[in-house]
Amino acid sequence: MNEAAQTLDGWYALHDFRSMDWPTWKLLPQEERQAALDEFYGFVEKLNTAHVEHTGSHAIYTVVGQKADFMLMILRPTMDELQQLELEFNKLAIAAYTIPTYSYVSVVELSNYLAGGNSNEDPYENPHVRKRLYPELPRSQYVCFYPMDKRRQGDDNWYMLNMDSRKELMRSHGQIGRTYAGKVKQIITGSVGFDDWEWGVTLFADDVLQFKKLVYEMRFDEVSARYGEFGSFYVGTLLEGNEKMDEFFRV
Amino acid sequence: MNEAAQTLDGWYALHDFRSMDWPTWKLLPQEERQAALDEFYGFVEKLNTAHVEHTGSHAIYTVVGQKADFMLMILRPTMDELQQLELEFNKLAIAAYTIPTYSYVSVVELSNYLAGGNSNEDPYENPHVRKRLYPELPRSQYVCFYPMDKRRQGDDNWYMLNMDSRKELMRSHGQIGRTYAGKVKQIITGSVGFDDWEWGVTLFADDVLQFKKLVYEMRFDEVSARYGEFGSFYVGTLLEGNEKMDEFFRV
Amino acid sequence: MNEAAQTLDGWYALHDFRSMDWPTWKLLPQEERQAALDEFYGFVEKLNTAHVEHTGSHAIYTVVGQKADFMLMILRPTMDELQQLELEFNKLAIAAYTIPTYSYVSVVELSNYLAGGNSNEDPYENPHVRKRLYPELPRSQYVCFYPMDKRRQGDDNWYMLNMDSRKELMRSHGQIGRTYAGKVKQIITGSVGFDDWEWGVTLFADDVLQFKKLVYEMRFDEVSARYGEFGSFYVGTLLEGNEKMDEFFRV
Amino acid sequence: MNEAAQTLDGWYALHDFRSMDWPTWKLLPQEERQAALDEFYGFVEKLNTAHVEHTGSHAIYTVVGQKADFMLMILRPTMDELQQLELEFNKLAIAAYTIPTYSYVSVVELSNYLAGGNSNEDPYENPHVRKRLYPELPRSQYVCFYPMDKRRQGDDNWYMLNMDSRKELMRSHGQIGRTYAGKVKQIITGSVGFDDWEWGVTLFADDVLQFKKLVYEMRFDEVSARYGEFGSFYVGTLLEGNEKMDEFFRV
Amino acid sequence: MNEAAQTLDGWYALHDFRSMDWPTWKLLPQEERQAALDEFYGFVEKLNTAHVEHTGSHAIYTVVGQKADFMLMILRPTMDELQQLELEFNKLAIAAYTIPTYSYVSVVELSNYLAGGNSNEDPYENPHVRKRLYPELPRSQYVCFYPMDKRRQGDDNWYMLNMDSRKELMRSHGQIGRTYAGKVKQIITGSVGFDDWEWGVTLFADDVLQFKKLVYEMRFDEVSARYGEFGSFYVGTLLEGNEKMDEFFRV
Repeated sequence: MNEAAQTLDGWYALHDFRSMDWPTWKLLPQEERQAALDEFYGFVEKLNTAHVEHTGSHAIYTVVGQKADFMLMILRPTMDELQQLELEFNKLAIAAYTIPTYSYVSVVELSNYLAGGNSNEDPYENPHVRKRLYPELPRSQYVCFYPMDKRRQGDDNWYMLNMDSRKELMRSHGQIGRTYAGKVKQIITGSVGFDDWEWGVTLFADDVLQFKKLVYEMRFDEVSARYGEFGSFYVGTLLEGNEKMDEFFRV
Repeated sequence: MNEAAQTLDGWYALHDFRSMDWPTWKLLPQEERQAALDEFYGFVEKLNTAHVEHTGSHAIYTVVGQKADFMLMILRPTMDELQQLELEFNKLAIAAYTIPTYSYVSVVELSNYLAGGNSNEDPYENPHVRKRLYPELPRSQYVCFYPMDKRRQGDDNWYMLNMDSRKELMRSHGQIGRTYAGKVKQIITGSVGFDDWEWGVTLFADDVLQFKKLVYEMRFDEVSARYGEFGSFYVGTLLEGNEKMDEFFRV
Repeated sequence: MNEAAQTLDGWYALHDFRSMDWPTWKLLPQEERQAALDEFYGFVEKLNTAHVEHTGSHAIYTVVGQKADFMLMILRPTMDELQQLELEFNKLAIAAYTIPTYSYVSVVELSNYLAGGNSNEDPYENPHVRKRLYPELPRSQYVCFYPMDKRRQGDDNWYMLNMDSRKELMRSHGQIGRTYAGKVKQIITGSVGFDDWEWGVTLFADDVLQFKKLVYEMRFDEVSARYGEFGSFYVGTLLEGNEKMDEFFRV
Repeated sequence: MNEAAQTLDGWYALHDFRSMDWPTWKLLPQEERQAALDEFYGFVEKLNTAHVEHTGSHAIYTVVGQKADFMLMILRPTMDELQQLELEFNKLAIAAYTIPTYSYVSVVELSNYLAGGNSNEDPYENPHVRKRLYPELPRSQYVCFYPMDKRRQGDDNWYMLNMDSRKELMRSHGQIGRTYAGKVKQIITGSVGFDDWEWGVTLFADDVLQFKKLVYEMRFDEVSARYGEFGSFYVGTLLEGNEKMDEFFRV
Repeated sequence: MNEAAQTLDGWYALHDFRSMDWPTWKLLPQEERQAALDEFYGFVEKLNTAHVEHTGSHAIYTVVGQKADFMLMILRPTMDELQQLELEFNKLAIAAYTIPTYSYVSVVELSNYLAGGNSNEDPYENPHVRKRLYPELPRSQYVCFYPMDKRRQGDDNWYMLNMDSRKELMRSHGQIGRTYAGKVKQIITGSVGFDDWEWGVTLFADDVLQFKKLVYEMRFDEVSARYGEFGSFYVGTLLEGNEKMDEFFRV
């Protein structure tokens, strides 16, 4: 039996992608539309409070192209809170004018491939680890999200590699990632047992081109070249603050 | 000709996933909505009676993310009863405010790969076997469901392996499962000839992270690594009792 | 050039799967609903007449799960009659309350892999052959339908095998089938050039578990293990007679 | 660099598949429905004129099963005319009662694999070639349409074969086709750069079983067995003349 | 670690495909329809201004077949402008009568496989490079769009090839492209990290057959034959100027 990598798991994550039903939204009388917006802003305000108090985190981004109009990403300590917030959103007046297009359920994850450190230490008590497991989502100008699997196909079967080979491959992979430090913030969430792919990758940057450079460069790395399977890619711009939101939702 | 594994088959299973049409549900006058809920609770009460009398079993869970809002899982001694209950549900007033998103038809199954025991015994009379073939579904806080196949692809063809190889592989697989005893309850249902995948796996746990740990650890086991093909994963929280249901359906 | 198997071809087959639009059906005034049902029963009566006179055959079954609510399977001597009956059904009042979910176009087929017999004989005059080419569909309690292909992939390419190898493989396959004689009635329809898969398989049984046993056992046979590709599986219960239909369509 | 086969290209082809929205069509007042039909017949009459004057060609067929209710196939000298006719059809009153289900854009093509002839000759001036590049679509009782690719997969990569191998394989393939001369008329249209598959195949016959025999026999030929990838198959019956159309559209 | 090809990146690109909801569009009172058109023409006029001032570029084409009715392709210096223009379009009155069918997000890209030149030079200052990175989209009569990947499958894994092999393969590929100079204008946009495929290819020509010839010839080149994976192909005709648009949108 092959040794599984150990993971550290932090906050649970829900990525919720929605399109606006613009025609119906426009048909709504102005005051009802405003009431719906105000109610939605109240919901966002509650998210902001949790974000500030670090009892969770969230981010709202537009999505470019027809896959969705916006993405709401929420992190919380329990799966139950995600379920509650999703339910709450669905019951908002504005939700009736949105069309669900995609969602992703996962948990912030650190793999131990690159782990070192003092083995006597409880990693969940390590402040550096905690900061990564319970991250405050940045307010960068751009976001990129995609789900991925490790391939299990013929001779390219990640899960049949032994631990040392996987470690070595991941080391090289991590080196590429580190050259983007300061340019791209990356949050890996694990979804084995929770959703259709094994991981979700959420990238944040103030230069959208860095997403392309990073993902393209990594594709030539053996971990991606031979063992990566990728789902749909979503890219968008920050939708933060009532002013930007007013501009977005105004019709 | 290769020897097929023998299976023991118990209750038939229907997993029924639905999303709520929240906007239309909200438009319904309050008393009609309450009447629809009361009728639905009556339906659930009937399921509860069968559950208590052990003439069947069922469980209702929310589903996190956009794949569905809730899942109704029903076990019954005959396929006909499943068909009748599905029809009955579809004719409930509340059904008009639900959107079917996925379903799965299968039968609780024990494979004989791990069988031992007295070969003179009728396994269907063995109380331990009976408890597993006609299980009372637990009321754990979390559920996870996914369908799966054994792969038949190039050199990774499960169905071309001889019985001894399959037995040995399944033995190792079972060992992982046993380390989760007490943390995850697993119900395997067979669907060859009934639905699009060969098996359905339903997991119950009070710690949702155990789903991820179990499925991830197993993925490094050769049975999954080389021979497992997986469908969509659904994860959710317990929706039990009128209070929780009221909270869920209230708009 | 590789030798194709010769086939004998009988009646043309249309499998038509529909879901009911229950909410809209319920909204229909009772007398209009009854009128729609009466018109539909008249259509079924016409099918019954052909069935009894053996100028064709048909069967109606519920489908368990969300794939469909019922399946209408029709056999006729010509493709034109199938087209006419489908058109006629689509113009019935009840059709407006159904949602087409899947269909399959094929022709009852006997392959010559297992053929023996007197080569001077015209097989279409052989009463045993005729009974299988122009079958009266049984009224068993359960039905199972699935489409399938023979694989053409890398080393597992059925169509590159020579005739003798295919014959030998089919012989073993047929032996399994024969052990289910009396328990499962199987109708093979060919759909090369007619629909998206190469064959449709329709199974009838009074014990639904026999479908699972048969298909599972065959999966270990090399013909299925290496060369079978399977589509969706549909399983359901007999919907025969106005009483059962009344119960089904009543809301 | 591998040598591409040269092709001769004739009329552009649009296959347009539609389902009728029967319920809404039935709701239309009789005189409006008749007006819509008359307008549609006028459109068809215009197609007939081009067909007779051989400035194009077309055919209308029902489609058996739920994939569509009818197919309109149009051939024209330019892509622009196809676009214009499609636009014109979409603006007809009847179009509002149809549901687009599939379409295919291609151009009538002759490959030079089998070419011989006088190399000094301009093939576009050869009357035999012209007749095949600018064909008058037959009014056979049945039609069959399917799109296809040549496979590029592992060792089965058509586009890596050298010209001589491809020529030899196509020669054998053509021999099968010729045995169906007089029984099946075949029109090959190329769609590389125009639509999702590389070719469309449209077959016409007065005996629908010949489609199955032809396609099945060819599947054992190495060109199909190793190198053919097939899309959906559509089969239908001739819908020619106002009487047949009246019968089809009458509700 | 394998060396990634360097890319030069220019304007961001949004391809937006839409179908018209003709029935609803026709139901709109004539003056409202005209007002919607006038508003849309104002939007297009703004695009024209940017096109003329070379602060961006765009093109509008019909799409032949049911995949869409028209495609709007927009190039802009920032991703934010694309998001803004998409949002603006979605809020136009006419948008309510369109159905989004596909979109593609990418950035104009030059790969360095074929690069030579003075390595001291900043390529972004080279006028020839700038013209290709910030292109004025042509007004050719026809357009062709398709997305593509480089394959990573078994022995056909582009990303495992070393730089020299890739360079050599791309050189041969480029030679084919150059033989179409003057006949087909090609714009390559990179979408790694932005959308579901790795590249988008947009071709412009006044002879639509050149698309087929170019793509077909390239398919025999090893880069495509072994390493190309292709998405859907879209082909259409120029929709430029109010007269052509009036004709298109008039009902």
